[in-house]
Amino acid sequence: MNGNVIVGQSGGPTSVINSSLAGVFKTAKDRGANKVYGMIHGIKGLLDRQYVELSDKLNTTMAIDLLKRTPSSYLGSCRYKLPEIADSRETYEKIFAILDELEIGYFLYIGGNDSMDTIKKLSDYAKETGSAIKFMGVPKTIDNDLAITDHTPGFGSAAKFIAATMKEIIRDGLVYDYPTITVVEIMGRNAGWLTSAAALAKSDDCEGVDLIYLPEKPFDVEKFIKKIRNLSKTGRSIVVAVSEGIKTADGKFVFELAEHVEFVDAFGHKQMSGTAKFLANKITAVLGLKARAIELSTLQRCAAHMTSRTDITEAYNVGGAAIKAAFEGETGKVVVLKRVSDDPYMCITELADVGKIANVEKKVPLEWITDDDYVAQDLIHYIHPLIQAELSPIMVDGLPRHLKVN
Amino acid sequence: MNGNVIVGQSGGPTSVINSSLAGVFKTAKDRGANKVYGMIHGIKGLLDRQYVELSDKLNTTMAIDLLKRTPSSYLGSCRYKLPEIADSRETYEKIFAILDELEIGYFLYIGGNDSMDTIKKLSDYAKETGSAIKFMGVPKTIDNDLAITDHTPGFGSAAKFIAATMKEIIRDGLVYDYPTITVVEIMGRNAGWLTSAAALAKSDDCEGVDLIYLPEKPFDVEKFIKKIRNLSKTGRSIVVAVSEGIKTADGKFVFELAEHVEFVDAFGHKQMSGTAKFLANKITAVLGLKARAIELSTLQRCAAHMTSRTDITEAYNVGGAAIKAAFEGETGKVVVLKRVSDDPYMCITELADVGKIANVEKKVPLEWITDDDYVAQDLIHYIHPLIQAELSPIMVDGLPRHLKVN
Repeated sequence: MNGNVIVGQSGGPTSVINSSLAGVFKTAKDRGANKVYGMIHGIKGLLDRQYVELSDKLNTTMAIDLLKRTPSSYLGSCRYKLPEIADSRETYEKIFAILDELEIGYFLYIGGNDSMDTIKKLSDYAKETGSAIKFMGVPKTIDNDLAITDHTPGFGSAAKFIAATMKEIIRDGLVYDYPTITVVEIMGRNAGWLTSAAALAKSDDCEGVDLIYLPEKPFDVEKFIKKIRNLSKTGRSIVVAVSEGIKTADGKFVFELAEHVEFVDAFGHKQMSGTAKFLANKITAVLGLKARAIELSTLQRCAAHMTSRTDITEAYNVGGAAIKAAFEGETGKVVVLKRVSDDPYMCITELADVGKIANVEKKVPLEWITDDDYVAQDLIHYIHPLIQAELSPIMVDGLPRHLKVN
Repeated sequence: MNGNVIVGQSGGPTSVINSSLAGVFKTAKDRGANKVYGMIHGIKGLLDRQYVELSDKLNTTMAIDLLKRTPSSYLGSCRYKLPEIADSRETYEKIFAILDELEIGYFLYIGGNDSMDTIKKLSDYAKETGSAIKFMGVPKTIDNDLAITDHTPGFGSAAKFIAATMKEIIRDGLVYDYPTITVVEIMGRNAGWLTSAAALAKSDDCEGVDLIYLPEKPFDVEKFIKKIRNLSKTGRSIVVAVSEGIKTADGKFVFELAEHVEFVDAFGHKQMSGTAKFLANKITAVLGLKARAIELSTLQRCAAHMTSRTDITEAYNVGGAAIKAAFEGETGKVVVLKRVSDDPYMCITELADVGKIANVEKKVPLEWITDDDYVAQDLIHYIHPLIQAELSPIMVDGLPRHLKVN
């Protein structure tokens, strides 16, 4: 083994991002790694020399098992885009000086497509300057919007939480003797993967949602109201799943049709909220029907008490495969998942060039969105195996136990 | 056994209201009941002759076990307040005619304080007219605002869901390297019991929430902003729990300070939303800090995937005790819970006169709300046993299984 390992987490957290961290740490140790460092708050923290030695923290098998069940990024995260190499060589010089000082041979970064940009730039710089450090990306995002990989770790658990709570919300909506209309807002800026998971609620014991709207297809407010009017004539309760990011034909976000406070994050993404609220108010205003809005909100990415065992295992595996590949000399790559069989479901890891993943956004194919405002059976079939099985929380004193950093 | 049994569910659903239904049904059957009917949509449905025979539905032990795990009211609910007897004798004549026709000897109603009003009126009418039918109330409400009973079935599971998700939200908020302020809105119109459950998040592995605001104490927006300003100087993330129903000193709801759509339900209660959103916007507007609002929303009353076993068992027991008491000749009573020991926690059922419970709202005692905008240790100690232990969902195809009515 040539040098130490350092691993960081970046971007929005998921319920299973720490399982990938566990996979990196455990596999590195099992394969004889010397020191395994963790960057605190990703590359941004590293620039301020913030890191921990993970062996000090993950020193029992219980700690590792708790880590797998702890939501949000154990090491802290950042939303920090590295400057272009040509624009700020001093940033790169500083990073590599710190890495050399820590005798790092292997640099792993767990994140989404913004974070893969970091791996791309660092490995480019290493190539350019002849550094021997290996750089590997470990995919995570609840949004499932990474290219090449069959799906992303983090998506399955978020999808399971969405489908499970949707079943509960549907049951809740059926309670009264008058129809209620419930509009549930699900995360997804440009890709509708998470929202389409609402379709999995439909089963022998559940009526399912009535309508599903993804950002991939233009949203027509008038048509929507008309559809609700027709459905409401059946006299039953209606549940609608909408992506926060649905847009009208002229490219305007539906939530922008309402008045509200807006701001932009470090990557230039608009922060949004209020799509469901806007639609529920519209239904009440135009049709005079009782409508409520529910935002599943942050729980989608942090409800570690309802994770998919399939997802936890795959998250662990992509972490383990990344450090294995780095030890074998790979660099500038991302571990991806390849579905080798659909039934029975089987998935293996492969390597992809980071340049093919960084900054690319994979959307739901239009043929998987049906004309009756729902999703195709193929899409349901695609998501179905990803929500299977559970990893029971370790309950202490009535509540799920997590691993605390300090 | 003199006659058949009929049972109904009323008011807002909880995660465990069906466990009380299971307790009524199973205990009635075990004690030799002939027919057990279920009113569809409570007393309102019964007036339209909507009912089912429960033995047809709950005909396997598996069905009963699924029923205990099914959120929301299995039989459907209503928000219908019976008219005063003197104002509408024909309504009562109609109800009693239907009951006589079905040869009902025992009438059980599972609900909150609005629903107990129904039991009170029906038992008053029975007394007045010499009817032998026994009327018993079975308490439920996530709000925990019923008088006399130590606590209400439904509260413990909602409290557990709130504490568990609060831990996850706190962990999520700590992720970034800049402080975020999260305002979490929790159900509770006039009573702050549910919001105070946020205090249970604090434990060895969790920092807990920073501030808790209940409707029992006037809320001062300026003081709140000042408090946030001071806390934000520590540079760490802040999580605040607020009741949806917090009010200013002049009795105005905080959410009324913002512009929004408002309407009133059948009991004259204002429908509210937007307290957390209003406060988060205020923080951003006045202090320029990043603040987000999360409404735990409907999930608080329907997240059957995260229930308290203590709560499920007690919900079952109050149902069973109610039918037992009715068989023994009691009427016009409600089953209440009495805590006979705190450590170890033990609770038994007793009977209380329905007149002492109907339409009375139990609030959090002011001495349990501390001057530093938090709750007293005594309050935490009171809630703590109610969230203990779990009833694992029966997972089928990756999702919690429920019992469907049809």
